[in-house]
Amino acid sequence: MSFFTPIISGIEPCHKILETDSYLSFLEKKPIKAGHCLVLPKLETDFIFDLEEAELSGLMNMARQVARAIRDSIPCKKVAMAVLGLEVRHAHIHLVPVDSAAELNFTAARLIFSEAEFEDTARRIRAAL
Amino acid sequence: MSFFTPIISGIEPCHKILETDSYLSFLEKKPIKAGHCLVLPKLETDFIFDLEEAELSGLMNMARQVARAIRDSIPCKKVAMAVLGLEVRHAHIHLVPVDSAAELNFTAARLIFSEAEFEDTARRIRAAL
Repeated sequence: MSFFTPIISGIEPCHKILETDSYLSFLEKKPIKAGHCLVLPKLETDFIFDLEEAELSGLMNMARQVARAIRDSIPCKKVAMAVLGLEVRHAHIHLVPVDSAAELNFTAARLIFSEAEFEDTARRIRAAL
Repeated sequence: MSFFTPIISGIEPCHKILETDSYLSFLEKKPIKAGHCLVLPKLETDFIFDLEEAELSGLMNMARQVARAIRDSIPCKKVAMAVLGLEVRHAHIHLVPVDSAAELNFTAARLIFSEAEFEDTARRIRAAL
């Protein structure tokens, strides 16, 4: 069982953006910025580049759809992408709407939003899909 | 002409890792860490997620090959991936061998290596392809 299993199985709620049989995207619960999303393969894989080519392409295709929706719904200069893989052993892509390189900082304090704020952000991104 | 055109055309030298008709990977000239590589589409595109699905898959396939070679040749906990897109209007993937999240910091001072050091790093990564 990985860190994300409860979310993937639906036991732990999330603000879902997009889902297929193999991939899932939802709002990061501890965001760097409003609109910060995760995209991950449901099958647990530690290192993202250990995915088979077709799996990686499928994952990136969902990241592409979600990133474009973030760009079209959340004010930002660019939607940055990052994969670290140091703490959670289930590969996941961060999509972060940013206005500067300094904002892509995973050691900074994370933002806190209310459920209503999260839901409003998720609704805006979903509407732009 | 983009920031990377002189490198793609061969006018400006680089420490090449891998090349196809459509994609190119080489050592970042201002690296965060030894082994920091770039992977990019030769055709200039500002936002990486504006690439067509097949182009993005091809790009990620090269990133996958290079990232695995970095993992197998450069001591690190993980090969992180990042795309910012704020300064250079030609999308490129950063692959950075890291030991901590704090190391993935694009605002920190970059490392300086001699030509011999760069070439030794490139040779090690290429040998692991």
